[in-house]
Amino acid sequence: MPVSIKLKDNRYGKSRVRLVKVERGSAGNDLKDLSVDIQLSGDFEASYTAGDNRLVIPTDTMKNTVYALARQAPLLEIEEFGLRLADHFLKRHAHVARARISISENLWKRIEHDGRQHAYSFQLSGPERRTASIDRDRKSISIAAGIADLVVLKTKNSAFEGFLRDEYTTLKETNDRLFGTAVTAEWSYNKTSLKFGDLWESIRDTMLETFANHDSRGVQHTLSAMGEFVLKRFDAVREIHLSMPNRHCLLVDLSPFHLDNPNEVFVPTDEPHGLIEATLTRSGS
Amino acid sequence: MPVSIKLKDNRYGKSRVRLVKVERGSAGNDLKDLSVDIQLSGDFEASYTAGDNRLVIPTDTMKNTVYALARQAPLLEIEEFGLRLADHFLKRHAHVARARISISENLWKRIEHDGRQHAYSFQLSGPERRTASIDRDRKSISIAAGIADLVVLKTKNSAFEGFLRDEYTTLKETNDRLFGTAVTAEWSYNKTSLKFGDLWESIRDTMLETFANHDSRGVQHTLSAMGEFVLKRFDAVREIHLSMPNRHCLLVDLSPFHLDNPNEVFVPTDEPHGLIEATLTRSGS
Amino acid sequence: MPVSIKLKDNRYGKSRVRLVKVERGSAGNDLKDLSVDIQLSGDFEASYTAGDNRLVIPTDTMKNTVYALARQAPLLEIEEFGLRLADHFLKRHAHVARARISISENLWKRIEHDGRQHAYSFQLSGPERRTASIDRDRKSISIAAGIADLVVLKTKNSAFEGFLRDEYTTLKETNDRLFGTAVTAEWSYNKTSLKFGDLWESIRDTMLETFANHDSRGVQHTLSAMGEFVLKRFDAVREIHLSMPNRHCLLVDLSPFHLDNPNEVFVPTDEPHGLIEATLTRSGS
Amino acid sequence: MPVSIKLKDNRYGKSRVRLVKVERGSAGNDLKDLSVDIQLSGDFEASYTAGDNRLVIPTDTMKNTVYALARQAPLLEIEEFGLRLADHFLKRHAHVARARISISENLWKRIEHDGRQHAYSFQLSGPERRTASIDRDRKSISIAAGIADLVVLKTKNSAFEGFLRDEYTTLKETNDRLFGTAVTAEWSYNKTSLKFGDLWESIRDTMLETFANHDSRGVQHTLSAMGEFVLKRFDAVREIHLSMPNRHCLLVDLSPFHLDNPNEVFVPTDEPHGLIEATLTRSGS
Repeated sequence: MPVSIKLKDNRYGKSRVRLVKVERGSAGNDLKDLSVDIQLSGDFEASYTAGDNRLVIPTDTMKNTVYALARQAPLLEIEEFGLRLADHFLKRHAHVARARISISENLWKRIEHDGRQHAYSFQLSGPERRTASIDRDRKSISIAAGIADLVVLKTKNSAFEGFLRDEYTTLKETNDRLFGTAVTAEWSYNKTSLKFGDLWESIRDTMLETFANHDSRGVQHTLSAMGEFVLKRFDAVREIHLSMPNRHCLLVDLSPFHLDNPNEVFVPTDEPHGLIEATLTRSGS
Repeated sequence: MPVSIKLKDNRYGKSRVRLVKVERGSAGNDLKDLSVDIQLSGDFEASYTAGDNRLVIPTDTMKNTVYALARQAPLLEIEEFGLRLADHFLKRHAHVARARISISENLWKRIEHDGRQHAYSFQLSGPERRTASIDRDRKSISIAAGIADLVVLKTKNSAFEGFLRDEYTTLKETNDRLFGTAVTAEWSYNKTSLKFGDLWESIRDTMLETFANHDSRGVQHTLSAMGEFVLKRFDAVREIHLSMPNRHCLLVDLSPFHLDNPNEVFVPTDEPHGLIEATLTRSGS
Repeated sequence: MPVSIKLKDNRYGKSRVRLVKVERGSAGNDLKDLSVDIQLSGDFEASYTAGDNRLVIPTDTMKNTVYALARQAPLLEIEEFGLRLADHFLKRHAHVARARISISENLWKRIEHDGRQHAYSFQLSGPERRTASIDRDRKSISIAAGIADLVVLKTKNSAFEGFLRDEYTTLKETNDRLFGTAVTAEWSYNKTSLKFGDLWESIRDTMLETFANHDSRGVQHTLSAMGEFVLKRFDAVREIHLSMPNRHCLLVDLSPFHLDNPNEVFVPTDEPHGLIEATLTRSGS
Repeated sequence: MPVSIKLKDNRYGKSRVRLVKVERGSAGNDLKDLSVDIQLSGDFEASYTAGDNRLVIPTDTMKNTVYALARQAPLLEIEEFGLRLADHFLKRHAHVARARISISENLWKRIEHDGRQHAYSFQLSGPERRTASIDRDRKSISIAAGIADLVVLKTKNSAFEGFLRDEYTTLKETNDRLFGTAVTAEWSYNKTSLKFGDLWESIRDTMLETFANHDSRGVQHTLSAMGEFVLKRFDAVREIHLSMPNRHCLLVDLSPFHLDNPNEVFVPTDEPHGLIEATLTRSGS
């Protein structure tokens, strides 16, 4: 590569390494269903500039590593499996400077029948997925947990009024609209050893509860409340990022058919959609 | 159109008419979230052969009709809303010979907190959707209900042995494999007035229970058992069609890493996939 | 299975068997990129009713068969590869009554540079795919070819006027609208030995040309013209089915901003969409 | 919001504002088909913390603005339309600190027949899309152009050898493999007034040519060459980021069927996939 051009940054890895692990116990089987993404940075420049692969860990090897490590010990929580994977690459290969592991978990629940949960038969639960991101270099380690596609909708206590109007504004003010969204949230922890599973459940519940009960003056308002409650209740959470599309439900104009529409009949739309994002953190940080 | 070419059959309509209806009661709100497809057949040939639109009901009008009818009465169950829509087109327009209405319902559940269900806040439940198809002409009416994308997996009591081997067979026999599938089922009713909601719940439970408990010798075997139990338990069901992809979970070969794999670590794959389909009916029919 | 319940029909097979074949010649390489679906019917009832797999050809074997047959001879056109696959299953296994093979081909073109086509580097061409369906039993054979997702749009010579109006009609008549659609067509041939590749290209061109030049009074009108021209020009085509969604482009009302909109600014929408379908055939048939 | 918690950052806007514009000329019509995303930052904190919407520009207004601005002047290139949109929000509203506009353009080509291009009928061209991102605040402006989903594959001159091996490596070295990828690239310009359309075409051609001709020792190697050539040839390009998944084509083992496979028959797979990313820049920067 000539003097005037340089590689500014680079990373590479394997994406969508899918893994199902069955852990078989006397009280029934446990089922884990993960998709793992691995990205490494480090001394890989020669592979870009000169096609010199001597330090390249093949992405196929990364895939194999996921399966081998999955076999060697219980998976535990996805934050813990991600930590093990990140540790492996940094410890095993001195030229790896940084490892980022992202895991998305499909959630299965046991099939219920006659009030009992089946021991080995499962049903996929919801579009929602549990996520974790581990970012580790030689000095520091960052653990984030999250949720994706938690689709919620409330039919009451949602308003959008008093907004700015300019020459392109046609939207009517409303103190009673539908508010539907697909919450994606990611929060970072300030410790590396925590009860990740219990925390995730509790944080999810807090977000659901806040969404349900909040007297919403807008998506921004509710998003902020959701983040605030999580930070208030969970000391282990350092910071939280929320991203909430506004999946608009448009009131249908039924007047051409001589019908009123007292907030009853709506067209849900996927596009265009509002998109509201914010990060909340603790003041000291 | 010249003598030698003719229009053999035709139909047209509107697809993906999305409708959210909120029914507001004192005990809380109900939320219905549907996607409606309408297809009409009848005396529409001139629109094809001569561009003569005089008998064409615009698909935009079909869309409007969905919203107007949704406002004029409670939606009730999707089978009932589909019947109302089909009836409307046949009664209103003498040249419509046949109306087919397909409805897919997204399922929402109330957000739970502290053991109570919220009165007006909901969460989307599962990838699974409830479906209904109404096919009505001047003489007869057919009502089918169904389920789509009911994703299930069992980690025990699933075998696949004793199959035919030819020169292209490499698959090993197994008496213990994972069995994952996304059930799509549609069943027709022999009556037009039924408790469609209760029936749907019970039929869904029957299919889940059968899948969970069946000692499976193959996808065909379990599919057939699921259909059989539905027909046995529910007199109102005339016939049932099931379609079950085999979402293979392949056992990972860990021997290169000097590890065994006692049915623990799998790669789930989306493609290729087996696809098993059958229709079960009553012998008299 | 008890006397009162019977298996009405059944079929099974492997879907989405993906195959890339490189045929290496002195003038450059050829690249074929297919997705194959196989469905067999026959004497498979015992696998459903009794879990008896003795006559079951595993879907894994079907997958292997695709790759083995791909190696044993040139693929040729997808209609021909489909025929070979169908023949194989019927000839090899006396209990197979019927084989249906569907193939979807991704279309690649050579990368062009300085007016020359590269010998071994390719670019995926279009969302459109070429398709073929072979349906073969012990007595007859049906060969159909097709196209999927041929996305076209015309900005002139498209009207929709003179349609029926009822109490739910709000659509305005227009003699100048955008007409966008994604053509899916499938036509059956009356011979089993044809120049399938040349025919496919010519039929595709005929449909494009007709769409482009037709003075459209509606989707039905243009769909019918497209089918008619194909039947007129190609004696080998027995029948053609076309399915054309109306991907509406809605004229934006700019009057709130004191702007006119002389058919210039549109919102394209995916849902809801009109869906127009018809089959055209020869009168004698 | 209590003292201990603060809003760290926030932004909001409208996504997937779809716009089709027809520009009608004597020589034929031009068709533009865009999807626009708008994100604003600025003095919006009160809407989050207090539900005070007085400074909130509704996302519905942003959508209207896209359509109104599209009508008021020719769209020109997407970089220019993006600049107009960003300028509008900053000039019109003093409390907007930063506007980010992302535009994705579907590419249509005229339908060709008898060697001539049709004046008003179009066909969607390729999965590839042209993209632009404008990021503008009160002090600076950044313009990036790009390409998404440019799917390419080469059947020769691609190797992957001499890589690192550890205890989890099973991959075989190869000096002849298929190399398929879907290029996503984004490059920033060092000027705000350029012939954006011509540049985009030339940069795309350079990437295609480099991919086609490069003697590849790995995805990293070719990615780097593609970026390097763009920077060498185009002074206006300040920096380029490339992201290239490795869409593996796995050689099928046909030995169980007593067949060889001299790099002919492959299974293309979507998951897992390698993912290689890098940014190249000029040394002075």
